[in-house]
Amino acid sequence: MSINTFGRLLRFTTWGESHGPALGAVVDGCPPGLELSEAAIQPFLDARRPGQSKFTTQRQEPDTVRILSGVFEGRTTGTPISLMIENVDQRSKDYSEVAKAYRPGHADYAYDAKYGFRDYRGGGRSSARETAARVAAGAVARLVIPEVAILGYVSEIGGDAIDPANFNADEIARNPFFCPDAAAAIRWEKIVDDARLAGSSVGGVVECLAIGVPAGWGAPLYGKLDADLAAGMMGINAVKGVEIGDGFAAARLTGEGNADPMRPGNDGPVFTANHAGGIAGGISTGQPVKVRVAFKPTSSILTPVETIDRDGQAAEIRTKGRHDPCVGIRGVPVVEAMMALVLADHKLLHRGQCG
Amino acid sequence: MSINTFGRLLRFTTWGESHGPALGAVVDGCPPGLELSEAAIQPFLDARRPGQSKFTTQRQEPDTVRILSGVFEGRTTGTPISLMIENVDQRSKDYSEVAKAYRPGHADYAYDAKYGFRDYRGGGRSSARETAARVAAGAVARLVIPEVAILGYVSEIGGDAIDPANFNADEIARNPFFCPDAAAAIRWEKIVDDARLAGSSVGGVVECLAIGVPAGWGAPLYGKLDADLAAGMMGINAVKGVEIGDGFAAARLTGEGNADPMRPGNDGPVFTANHAGGIAGGISTGQPVKVRVAFKPTSSILTPVETIDRDGQAAEIRTKGRHDPCVGIRGVPVVEAMMALVLADHKLLHRGQCG
Amino acid sequence: MSINTFGRLLRFTTWGESHGPALGAVVDGCPPGLELSEAAIQPFLDARRPGQSKFTTQRQEPDTVRILSGVFEGRTTGTPISLMIENVDQRSKDYSEVAKAYRPGHADYAYDAKYGFRDYRGGGRSSARETAARVAAGAVARLVIPEVAILGYVSEIGGDAIDPANFNADEIARNPFFCPDAAAAIRWEKIVDDARLAGSSVGGVVECLAIGVPAGWGAPLYGKLDADLAAGMMGINAVKGVEIGDGFAAARLTGEGNADPMRPGNDGPVFTANHAGGIAGGISTGQPVKVRVAFKPTSSILTPVETIDRDGQAAEIRTKGRHDPCVGIRGVPVVEAMMALVLADHKLLHRGQCG
Amino acid sequence: MSINTFGRLLRFTTWGESHGPALGAVVDGCPPGLELSEAAIQPFLDARRPGQSKFTTQRQEPDTVRILSGVFEGRTTGTPISLMIENVDQRSKDYSEVAKAYRPGHADYAYDAKYGFRDYRGGGRSSARETAARVAAGAVARLVIPEVAILGYVSEIGGDAIDPANFNADEIARNPFFCPDAAAAIRWEKIVDDARLAGSSVGGVVECLAIGVPAGWGAPLYGKLDADLAAGMMGINAVKGVEIGDGFAAARLTGEGNADPMRPGNDGPVFTANHAGGIAGGISTGQPVKVRVAFKPTSSILTPVETIDRDGQAAEIRTKGRHDPCVGIRGVPVVEAMMALVLADHKLLHRGQCG
Repeated sequence: MSINTFGRLLRFTTWGESHGPALGAVVDGCPPGLELSEAAIQPFLDARRPGQSKFTTQRQEPDTVRILSGVFEGRTTGTPISLMIENVDQRSKDYSEVAKAYRPGHADYAYDAKYGFRDYRGGGRSSARETAARVAAGAVARLVIPEVAILGYVSEIGGDAIDPANFNADEIARNPFFCPDAAAAIRWEKIVDDARLAGSSVGGVVECLAIGVPAGWGAPLYGKLDADLAAGMMGINAVKGVEIGDGFAAARLTGEGNADPMRPGNDGPVFTANHAGGIAGGISTGQPVKVRVAFKPTSSILTPVETIDRDGQAAEIRTKGRHDPCVGIRGVPVVEAMMALVLADHKLLHRGQCG
Repeated sequence: MSINTFGRLLRFTTWGESHGPALGAVVDGCPPGLELSEAAIQPFLDARRPGQSKFTTQRQEPDTVRILSGVFEGRTTGTPISLMIENVDQRSKDYSEVAKAYRPGHADYAYDAKYGFRDYRGGGRSSARETAARVAAGAVARLVIPEVAILGYVSEIGGDAIDPANFNADEIARNPFFCPDAAAAIRWEKIVDDARLAGSSVGGVVECLAIGVPAGWGAPLYGKLDADLAAGMMGINAVKGVEIGDGFAAARLTGEGNADPMRPGNDGPVFTANHAGGIAGGISTGQPVKVRVAFKPTSSILTPVETIDRDGQAAEIRTKGRHDPCVGIRGVPVVEAMMALVLADHKLLHRGQCG
Repeated sequence: MSINTFGRLLRFTTWGESHGPALGAVVDGCPPGLELSEAAIQPFLDARRPGQSKFTTQRQEPDTVRILSGVFEGRTTGTPISLMIENVDQRSKDYSEVAKAYRPGHADYAYDAKYGFRDYRGGGRSSARETAARVAAGAVARLVIPEVAILGYVSEIGGDAIDPANFNADEIARNPFFCPDAAAAIRWEKIVDDARLAGSSVGGVVECLAIGVPAGWGAPLYGKLDADLAAGMMGINAVKGVEIGDGFAAARLTGEGNADPMRPGNDGPVFTANHAGGIAGGISTGQPVKVRVAFKPTSSILTPVETIDRDGQAAEIRTKGRHDPCVGIRGVPVVEAMMALVLADHKLLHRGQCG
Repeated sequence: MSINTFGRLLRFTTWGESHGPALGAVVDGCPPGLELSEAAIQPFLDARRPGQSKFTTQRQEPDTVRILSGVFEGRTTGTPISLMIENVDQRSKDYSEVAKAYRPGHADYAYDAKYGFRDYRGGGRSSARETAARVAAGAVARLVIPEVAILGYVSEIGGDAIDPANFNADEIARNPFFCPDAAAAIRWEKIVDDARLAGSSVGGVVECLAIGVPAGWGAPLYGKLDADLAAGMMGINAVKGVEIGDGFAAARLTGEGNADPMRPGNDGPVFTANHAGGIAGGISTGQPVKVRVAFKPTSSILTPVETIDRDGQAAEIRTKGRHDPCVGIRGVPVVEAMMALVLADHKLLHRGQCG
């Protein structure tokens, strides 16, 4: 089934294809009275915008957002907020090859198996352009949780990880990789550029911290804060893994090594570690919420790959066109948006049940 | 908010605490006419049952399931199936220490922060006993997808992984660890027993394959097959990470290395690799669906850990009582159950939209 | 599809058949810390209980409720509350006739058309016994809205309506009809008894007021307070019509006649009329919320009715057994329960969005 | 909470205000491969369009729909269909009076009580213009149920009902009232024109038949076909009552009088009556599904009505501007749309569970 709505109380629904006239999101359930204008959303779209360096796709999209409803005299009314972004640079191109043969690693074959046909222009609905709608929706969600600071960054590209000792949040905005380690950013230039020049691609890992989440958001089961984060992150294009806190590394620890001891503090407990990533039993603990997200290398590469065509015959395909050599980079604003959307939803849910 | 329902068309709702009279699940949306009896559910509960070896908790629970509704003359009626498991071995014990101080790593502090108080007996609602209800619900879900074979196993304990070259599915039932590598199973005996004797605990990784899933189940966005699996798995007690296919390892590959080329086959395409874990763009590809799940070491350890009490005062706590030295082991039937529940739901969803 | 869950934040899921071992409800999303015991639920079940006068079915059911989860030391924990009611008086009887032929007006034919077969014993899942689970769930919902007083009563039986001039809330508990008009109650004795003796049945109308609902609960569209009430009431067995405020009578008024003018009051506006039934634009106005619900006469009658059997052959059926000559009477506690459940849900929803 | 999504498998989300730049709907879950173009939607919008006779509001809106996503090469892709209608005739006018004082009968006071403020221009989100979005969504839903013919009409205006003996479906399109009784249509001219000239308004009743619904759509409880219809209809602006089949009239019948006897037919049973309106136990019976919907007179009248202003002071208000003297008339395409949306959803739900 097609399921394009995410969230429980604060919900958003996205629509639009890579090569249609526009794409957008409808954000529903937003509290009333919050100051909102297009100017509050645009910077987040700009951060995700393609074509800003040679390390991302050269598609040129202004990604200008319009608010079509739900705001009156500069404030949210509590009714649905319709956000629209027009597609501008749908370069006319020959799609006959993609229309006929399935690009391995892409959703082409799975779409045809499900729906019987597909909009093959630029990936159609499975294009990463859809994430612009999430970023716009996420900008609204941020207004719901002013107490929370969200910090996303790339921690690994092509297997080359940052050195935690070099972590400097101020660096993130200073390089085209959202990299908090100045030395790693320099190394990554070569990694990504080499991939780009070779018509290849590399994967990456995005980390995201949410600082200021109070203890008590979430739920004990199913709609757990970590389960909803996992769903939100795994639902981003190209994501193949999600970790909360230490994630898989926790599976290699002992109970003693994984403990997050508490001491009395002035403002609730002081934790001496945060292996749990700020979530215990599905509920926030008051520590920073930490998520790690694995992005695969984009499947659009120039090297020919064996495939089949729509008639089931053997074929070979190489994906020309404009692509991100590392989709994880532009994944940072998307991961931040999903973090904001999940947290804002759980803030409202908690308030609904517990007052 | 409390959210104890999972699924969209095939939904289940669980209830019950560790030390209440019973726990259970209501499975709704099940197709009619499927043969169902308690005997079809019990083996899965037996696989999860505690107290079967020295490597799991010594709590003795028969975990006998009763079907209270939704079955008539041995077949599902299409109406809700109520499953109940009585708690038998709620050993009377002194909970005053746990009631007063928060066990680090457990949900104790987060619960109190959310709800103002908690049922502290054996973890209350956050006890892993809740997973018995999922396993029972999962047994019903399996009936909905007879075309799918689900194979779960432990692939790593305490940082010691199986050797893929030794993989033998027949081994899984031959050792108390659901381990497909006979040599690893022998090593794990010592690892787990050492942890048990030391009052410590170790983490583990569970892998699960679903073989026979046809291409086309899932959705392009949000309600993606992988996003729903991520939510389902991350919602299991003690889970901190979820991977689909190669997961984080994919983030270290190039586009060429991560490709899953296709060749013509007799029955749809033949894939020459499965880095994607059987899911592309949120939709199944016809390959085996593969999930990896990281279980942290249980936080119940005999070593005293620094904590605070309900009054915010410094305290120290050690968790006596009956615990699993490695909760990942008994996680295997739970992971399998969640796999079955997600897949069965998506089978019905796909049929609903696409006929 | 089978959909046995109702509500958005405060949700309940019911299960069970007329002749199964038990039936029940799982109430999820309830705020924590509310005092709850079986004694708080039982009076509402007793009000709905069959066999209390000759005017209702003679099935004898104690309808004793057990709380299986979600309550600790006498207070709700915020986790799911499992309520179970055992079936006691499933009289062994010959169902071969009902199994073979469809009772007109009942769900028999529609069930078979949908599911291919059905549990025919006492109506199975479509038995009005299911409403016991709603009444139990409704008793929990009442705890969430202590500011609201709910008053349900029968206003019409067999076409004979109460005289509003005779309305006396104290009368409701003094007669077996939940009738607020002492004179009408006397007339109804004959109407219902005549129907009973003739093996016939009569319809009725239940009205329900909720006093104390503050202005602001509800939503402008789709999840409107009146739309949710309409769904909740129309979902009760035998209900064929729902009105808010003046309902169909409003369609015969002019704009002037239907106006609900406001004057300044000490505590918000004073309304000089309540044609709207306390709801404008889907949102409560602070006036009493008023719903009217039409119950058809039960289709179980002794007069033979033309029908077909499972093989499509002509047949005739008369429904022996124990039946309510006027199902509307015992509908009063059910309507009250649904009112409480909808209002409690919207209280939490409003708090979630608007704080 | 704001809830602007309706449906379970086939879902639609609407957005937009009376005086914003546009309004729209996102239809999600639509089966793939259905032929869809703007030309397939426009006629239904035209039927609802204002300003077509002196009996409806004089606002001039072309209500031209644009499809922004979800359609490729003339067919639905299975992904979300975004429909947008631009607002054209938002006449600039002085709203200071409406901004300051609450119009009785409108949602003004309830909105302010809920959200703290409101978009007062033309009713904002509570304007009946929102129903254009439903009509557009309904046009998509019709494609999902080609086997069903939907026939809506006005059966009563200002208390003057049609004579069933005069019913002629062909008449419906021949007069500006969607009236199937030519004689009544003539009488209604005077009723509605008198109301219009007096600056008053009258109520009306809309009936809707769905012919061709097979037996088996719906659910036994909560998500019953009739409960979902009741929610859908009661959620339309100005609606105060919903009946299925005989509705409240059924409450005045005996069991014998209300029976719908069955006889063998060539194609399932032949029913000799349809008091039930095509739905038994929440599930369709194969007979025509019949709904009756009561529209109150619009509260926008020229007669001054007592009210209060935002400061709680006494005031008087008369609603100038362009209004429908009988909102029920243009309610017909909206009721038809909701009928199509509910039925299409239940078709998919039934297929999902029962294959």
